[in-house]
Amino acid sequence: MVGLPARGKSLISGKVKRYLQWTSVKAEVFNVGKYRREGTPHPDANFFDAGNVEGEKARRAAAEAAVADMINWLQDPSNKVAILDATNSTKSRRKWIYEKLEEAKVAHLFVESKCDDEELIMANILDVKTTSPDYVGQNPEEAAKDFRDRIKMYEKVYQTIDESEKQLTYVKVTNIGHQVVINRIQDYLQSRLVYFLTNLHIKPRSIWLSRHGESEYNLEGKIGGDANLSPRGFQYAKMLPKLLRKSGLPKDAPLTIWTSTLKRTNQTAGHVVEELGWEKLQWKALDELDSGNCDGLTYAQIAEMFPEDFKARDDDKYNYRYRGGESYRDVVIRLEPIIMELERSENILIITHQAIVRCIFAYFMQVDQSQSPWMEVPLHTLMKLTPKAYGTQVEKYKANIPAVSTWRPQGSTAKHHAGEVDTVVGEDVAGDKSTVTKVEEVKVHS
Amino acid sequence: MVGLPARGKSLISGKVKRYLQWTSVKAEVFNVGKYRREGTPHPDANFFDAGNVEGEKARRAAAEAAVADMINWLQDPSNKVAILDATNSTKSRRKWIYEKLEEAKVAHLFVESKCDDEELIMANILDVKTTSPDYVGQNPEEAAKDFRDRIKMYEKVYQTIDESEKQLTYVKVTNIGHQVVINRIQDYLQSRLVYFLTNLHIKPRSIWLSRHGESEYNLEGKIGGDANLSPRGFQYAKMLPKLLRKSGLPKDAPLTIWTSTLKRTNQTAGHVVEELGWEKLQWKALDELDSGNCDGLTYAQIAEMFPEDFKARDDDKYNYRYRGGESYRDVVIRLEPIIMELERSENILIITHQAIVRCIFAYFMQVDQSQSPWMEVPLHTLMKLTPKAYGTQVEKYKANIPAVSTWRPQGSTAKHHAGEVDTVVGEDVAGDKSTVTKVEEVKVHS
Repeated sequence: MVGLPARGKSLISGKVKRYLQWTSVKAEVFNVGKYRREGTPHPDANFFDAGNVEGEKARRAAAEAAVADMINWLQDPSNKVAILDATNSTKSRRKWIYEKLEEAKVAHLFVESKCDDEELIMANILDVKTTSPDYVGQNPEEAAKDFRDRIKMYEKVYQTIDESEKQLTYVKVTNIGHQVVINRIQDYLQSRLVYFLTNLHIKPRSIWLSRHGESEYNLEGKIGGDANLSPRGFQYAKMLPKLLRKSGLPKDAPLTIWTSTLKRTNQTAGHVVEELGWEKLQWKALDELDSGNCDGLTYAQIAEMFPEDFKARDDDKYNYRYRGGESYRDVVIRLEPIIMELERSENILIITHQAIVRCIFAYFMQVDQSQSPWMEVPLHTLMKLTPKAYGTQVEKYKANIPAVSTWRPQGSTAKHHAGEVDTVVGEDVAGDKSTVTKVEEVKVHS
Repeated sequence: MVGLPARGKSLISGKVKRYLQWTSVKAEVFNVGKYRREGTPHPDANFFDAGNVEGEKARRAAAEAAVADMINWLQDPSNKVAILDATNSTKSRRKWIYEKLEEAKVAHLFVESKCDDEELIMANILDVKTTSPDYVGQNPEEAAKDFRDRIKMYEKVYQTIDESEKQLTYVKVTNIGHQVVINRIQDYLQSRLVYFLTNLHIKPRSIWLSRHGESEYNLEGKIGGDANLSPRGFQYAKMLPKLLRKSGLPKDAPLTIWTSTLKRTNQTAGHVVEELGWEKLQWKALDELDSGNCDGLTYAQIAEMFPEDFKARDDDKYNYRYRGGESYRDVVIRLEPIIMELERSENILIITHQAIVRCIFAYFMQVDQSQSPWMEVPLHTLMKLTPKAYGTQVEKYKANIPAVSTWRPQGSTAKHHAGEVDTVVGEDVAGDKSTVTKVEEVKVHS
C-alpha cells in the first residue's frame, strides 16, 4: 500500500484480504503501525517528523521487521498474497521494498490510494481518533488534532507514484474508484485485483439478503428441484415489502432485486415488484447449489442410496462435489461475478437459496470455509448487510410466519431439525466478532 | 475512440464489438473514414492537414454524418453500444462529441489508444498500406510513405486526454495493456469494458481447441453424464501430442491445458500432460451444457418423454433451457470469465465439450447466435485459432481415427448422423468470410 494516513489504506487492505480468502487465495495483512507500536505505543505527531532522528530510526525498524516477517510468511507456498499496510510514501522507501521483493523472488503490486476529497479524509480521521490504538484513552479532540499534525508531517515528504517509477507494477486509485491508473499488470491475480479495486466504492448502501419463502420441497425435506412456494411461503412473499420497510429503506435511492432463475425465488419477489415497483433481474449464478444425481431426494434417501457420498460430504462439505453437480467451492467460483457486481452496486435485494446465502454471507462476514456450509440460514428471515469502514453491520428481520427448518447438523438424516438460529447466525457465526457491529432481531407481524 | 492513425483503434473497436455481441449486447462500429471516403475515396496526406480548409471541411462533414447516424441508431432501444472509430484527436472535437451525446442522453466512454512502440506502429502501417481502401491499387511503398505523412499531419494537432478533461469518462490505454488510466467509470457495462480492455494484449499466440475423444456415451447416442472414453477415444488421446506437434508448437513458449472437470476431457489430456509435460488446469466452467432432466437420455428418448421440450429446443436452440439445466445463453454467461482469461493469456490448449467448443468458437469467429448451436464440431479434430490484427486464423487437424458423429440436424432423433463437416466448419460457418483468413485440413495418421 502507498498513501498518506487517513486515505483508506487499511480499508482497502482489509477488503482485498477478505476477497482473496473467500476465493481460497491465502492472504495476510502486515500492518507496519502494529510493529511500530511495540516500541512506541502512543507517539505524538513529532515522532513522525522526517527530521526526528529517533522517530525515523524507530519507524524504519518497524518497516524492516514487517517486511522481514512478510517475506518469511511468503516462504510457505500455501501463502499467496501478503499486503504491506503502511504509508510507503517516498520513492526511496518503495525502491527499497521493490529490491527486497526482487531478492526474495516475490512479485509486487503497489496500490496507491490518493484522496483529495476533504469529506472522505475527515470521516477517516474521525474514525481513526475513535478506533486507533495510538490514541486509546486520550481526549478525542486532541487526538484528532494530533492526527492532523501527523498527516502534515507525512505530507512534507510524500511523493506520489509517477512516470519515474514506471518499472514498477502499480495501481493508483484516486478518491476510491473515481480515477485509476494501472501500470504493467502482468499476471492473472494482479488483473483480478485491479478489477476488484476499480469496482470498489464507499457510497452508503445496504444489501438485503433472503432465502425464498418455504417451498413444497422444503415441506417434504427434498433438496434441489424447481418447486412452487408452500402456502406459508406465499405468505412470506406477501409480507416481504413490509419487512423491507421495517428495515429502513433509503428514500428515493434506487433499489434492484436479484433472484435466481428458479420459481421459488421469483414467486418470493412477486409482491416486492408489485408493491414497491423495483426492477427485477434474474441470475442463473444465483441458482441453488446443483445436487446432481441427488436432485429431488431427501437426505435419508441420499444416505441410503449413496452412503459413501453422504459421508464424504459430511466430512468435507465445502469441497464435496455432488455427482454430476457442484461443491460449495464450485458455487463460490460462479458467484465471483456476483460479488464483483455487488461491490460496484448500491442498494440490492437478493432473493436466493440456502447455499448461496451462505456463500454471500461468508464473503461479507469472513466466515471460514469449514464453517460456512454448516451455517444456519432460517427461512422467512430478511438480513440487511450494511458495509461500514471496518466491518459489515448485520440486522435480521424475522417474519412471524412459521416455516420448517432446513438446517441439518453433521451426520443427520432427519427430515426437519429444530433450528439453532439464535446462537448460529449473528454474533459468533463468523468467528470474528470485530466484523459484526450490530445484530438486531425484529419480529414483524402480518 | 481517440488516437493517432495506426494505433490499433480499429482493432480495439472490432474486438469490443465482437465481445459485446457475443454477450448479447448489440453493438456497432461507426467508422468515420468510411463516411469520408464517400466524398474523397483516395485522398493524399495533404487532405489531412489541419490547414487544408477544403480537407478540414470534408472531414468535419464525415464526422457529423457518422455521429448523426450513430445517435439515430441508438434511438432503437435494442441497440446498446455504438463505437465511433475515428481519431477524435483534439479536445475541441471531443467536447463537440460529448455535447452531442449529452443532448441525446447517451452515456459516453472515450477510449484513447496511445502507442510509442515503433515496432507496433510500423506493423500497423504495413497492415494498413496493404488493406486500407484508401490505397487500393496503389504502389505499396508509396502508400506507406503517404500514410506516414498523414500521421504527421495528425501529430501536429494531436492532444492526448489529460486532467483538463476530467469531467469525461475515459480509459487511456498505452501500448495496448501496458499502462491504463481509468476516469469516472460509473456503470456496469463501462466497468466490464474497462476490464476487457485491460486484459487485451497483442503478443503472438494460438489457442488450440478440441473436444474430448469419443466417449462411451457418444457410442450409445446419450447426452450428458460423466462417461469414460471409448477405445477409439483413448486412441485419440494418445495421438493428441503428435497432432499438436504437427500443428506447429511454439518453441519454448509456455503452454497450459485447460479441461473441464469431467472424466472424458481429463482422459483426453492424459498423454499431452505425460509426453509434453504441460501444466493442466480444470475449470468447472468448461463442463458440458447441463441437460438437467434429460441428462443420460438419447435424443429419441427426449423426443418421446418430453416432446414439447424437444420441439421448443429445436425452435430456439440458443435460448432453450433444459428443465433443471442450461441454455446456450447460460453457457455463454458462465464462459465469460474464460474468455476474459483467454484474452489475457498466451498459448492455451482447451479440451472441452461440443456446446462449449461452439460457444468459444463463436466468440472468436463472430458466429451468430442462431447458427452457433447448430455448428458441427467433429470428434477427433484439433482446431488451432490464431488471433491476427483483423480476424482469427483457423486451422483444423483431423486425426485419422474414426468416431461417431454427434451432430444432429434440426428435428432429427437419429442416434448418429453422417457429418457435414467440410461445408459447415470452416469457410462459411461464420457467415463472415472476412474473419477466416486461412483454413487448412491436415490428416494425421498414427
